[in-house]
Amino acid sequence: MSIVESAGQVLREGAFGHATGLACRECGHEIPLGPNYACPECFGPLEIAYDFPAITREEIEAGPANIWRYKALLPVPSDIEQSPNMEPGYTRLLKAHNLGRELGIDNLWVKDDSTNPTNSFKDRVVACALSAATEFHSKVFACPSTGNLANAVAAAGARAGIKTVVFIPANLETPKKVNSAIFTDSLIAVNGNYDDVNKLASEIAGEEDGWAFVNVNVRPYYAEGSKTLGYEIAEQLGWRLPDQIVIPVASGSQLTKVHKAFQELIKLGLVEEKPYRVFGAQATGCSPVSVAYKAGVDAIRPVKPDTIAKSLAIGNPADGIYVLDICRETGGAVEDITDDEVRAGIVLLARTEGIFTETAGGTTVGVLKKLVETGQLDTSLETVVINTGHGLKTLDAVTELVGAAATIDPSYDAFRASGLV
Amino acid sequence: MSIVESAGQVLREGAFGHATGLACRECGHEIPLGPNYACPECFGPLEIAYDFPAITREEIEAGPANIWRYKALLPVPSDIEQSPNMEPGYTRLLKAHNLGRELGIDNLWVKDDSTNPTNSFKDRVVACALSAATEFHSKVFACPSTGNLANAVAAAGARAGIKTVVFIPANLETPKKVNSAIFTDSLIAVNGNYDDVNKLASEIAGEEDGWAFVNVNVRPYYAEGSKTLGYEIAEQLGWRLPDQIVIPVASGSQLTKVHKAFQELIKLGLVEEKPYRVFGAQATGCSPVSVAYKAGVDAIRPVKPDTIAKSLAIGNPADGIYVLDICRETGGAVEDITDDEVRAGIVLLARTEGIFTETAGGTTVGVLKKLVETGQLDTSLETVVINTGHGLKTLDAVTELVGAAATIDPSYDAFRASGLV
Repeated sequence: MSIVESAGQVLREGAFGHATGLACRECGHEIPLGPNYACPECFGPLEIAYDFPAITREEIEAGPANIWRYKALLPVPSDIEQSPNMEPGYTRLLKAHNLGRELGIDNLWVKDDSTNPTNSFKDRVVACALSAATEFHSKVFACPSTGNLANAVAAAGARAGIKTVVFIPANLETPKKVNSAIFTDSLIAVNGNYDDVNKLASEIAGEEDGWAFVNVNVRPYYAEGSKTLGYEIAEQLGWRLPDQIVIPVASGSQLTKVHKAFQELIKLGLVEEKPYRVFGAQATGCSPVSVAYKAGVDAIRPVKPDTIAKSLAIGNPADGIYVLDICRETGGAVEDITDDEVRAGIVLLARTEGIFTETAGGTTVGVLKKLVETGQLDTSLETVVINTGHGLKTLDAVTELVGAAATIDPSYDAFRASGLV
Repeated sequence: MSIVESAGQVLREGAFGHATGLACRECGHEIPLGPNYACPECFGPLEIAYDFPAITREEIEAGPANIWRYKALLPVPSDIEQSPNMEPGYTRLLKAHNLGRELGIDNLWVKDDSTNPTNSFKDRVVACALSAATEFHSKVFACPSTGNLANAVAAAGARAGIKTVVFIPANLETPKKVNSAIFTDSLIAVNGNYDDVNKLASEIAGEEDGWAFVNVNVRPYYAEGSKTLGYEIAEQLGWRLPDQIVIPVASGSQLTKVHKAFQELIKLGLVEEKPYRVFGAQATGCSPVSVAYKAGVDAIRPVKPDTIAKSLAIGNPADGIYVLDICRETGGAVEDITDDEVRAGIVLLARTEGIFTETAGGTTVGVLKKLVETGQLDTSLETVVINTGHGLKTLDAVTELVGAAATIDPSYDAFRASGLV
């Protein structure tokens, strides 16, 4: 078996499947596979380049009920299922009859990623980052985070038996700390806000050997995990692309990767080529991409976030300019809503479809509603909306909105007298 | 199309699939399918009777990635997927390398039901109850509950578009109220404890027409949903029964239904007949079945529960005597552990396999450990342990046990000085 040497490391043959190198999204410069994320020529973001094999729908359908059914299209080895991992993905795509009726959309689906192992789409990207960290012989699996990512990294690392170190702002609420600390003995609280924590992580990634920060130095591998959302939606629709899709925008990575997934499926002949519109959703309190979209400009002006949708609160989104490109080219849009509309979106999805989403999902559903009301979305076209995380993680957002309808004494007479039925 | 009349109601043909009637578990008396749960002859519990068709592994494998792949073996119509429902089940069966190594078990699996739509196995049973409620033309879908069941009923009812009424003790903590109230505008707080709430529910079920209380008058249909846990385990093992299985015991229904599922698979020729041992897990603060098992008696003496494992805290378990029979006949056991051992079980599962379980799962994992330590479990045999729910619902249980390892200033020097790496 031949061995590939890359970035000073000896890599297993096939360690990254059909990936052939890292290509700069800006200048196209290619370098060998390694724990790198910025182009050495122009500092643009690096993405995985592939030489995909021919693959059939049947081969994919014969795979496991998780993201590894698409392993041939990811930077992972062909024996990935043998390594202990969280086995995320292949989550429900639910026909949203009630929500569709409520909003006046004829044919609406919810892709519900809140049922992933740690209850957000982050399990998908972290699973791909873990594979890369393993192949690079990393000794520490790490991230800066305030929530979903911390949960996913700490859990995946525990199961894989690799040391995890998770950095969080020290003032995080206790429940959020517990939800990561349950998995790791190295939760590190940092005196500062998320930006401070993030900066510290980049510093450590630069100084220490053998640290794989999922969203820093193994980011190109990590980001590919979001493609599986796109693959699943197409497969679950019966190997067909939707006409319209609404996706939340934090860094913007997920939206660009779902679009990339659709393009790959077309190129591989797995779905028929057709036009589709991509819409981005932000909360007004952190809406740099939406602001740029509406202003008709190409540059994103960074903002200081102030919204309850904390998992979307990235003031300087790395992939924001690509989101603008995609939404404009496909005939979609980027829209934003207030925090009250975010809360209303959470309740609306729960009451119509029985899905309890976090503030990010409330944002996406609320934006879907606004897109209809403003005529930006065609209600006669098949539409998918993505729910990325679970409401149990952002309970406070709705605590004031819902509660008991009545309090009664424990007797049938009291029940009848309450006039509830 | 012929029509079946039952219990004064006109039912669709095939409304309950291959179910043929309700049979008393005690005296064998059979009555037609209807919203009944007690034998009119002896007041024993009624169970669904079937006339199963021949069915192949391939037919099941071609079904959806949820419990409806087993619809031919459930009391539901053949078009069940067409009705809006939560699409629960087909959850992960994870090889537990780390936990197995920690406990000295050679071949251990975790069946993780915490990734169901509302994060517990209750979505399975509620989906079957909802189908029955629909076929009986019920106008209200209801339950008494303190937690998981309330979430599942309120969510499933919202999605199905049927009115839900959920009864809870008035002193329930706010997060637990929110987790149900998010789905329904008829959460009713009752001044009293769970027993009072439960008694009120039975009274309403007896007095009101058209109310389907999932765990009261449609209980025989509801309970069948737990069989899918057994079917999935066998299918996910490659159509093979495990040698040993450890299951939490609240009412005892789940344990009896997993055993029933294994027996059905043998009779249908879908798995090879083989001996297997069934173990029941309780918390010492509510361990009436374990106490009876250890005393070698057949009668269960009801207790007043006092344990943090609230979802297992049923002091007078309806199926306790059947649990005793099954565990004794199969060569298993029933064991119980303290609340501190429950908490330790939660942390152990999280740290080894990246699964955050609620107190019920902590109980099951802790009992698994105790069964090994006391020599009751054969560590050389293939063993499955069931995780029934999610730790986000019982966060308080571990808040004192886990937390940040250190608090540092946001600089690389501070990080180095912390001595953490």
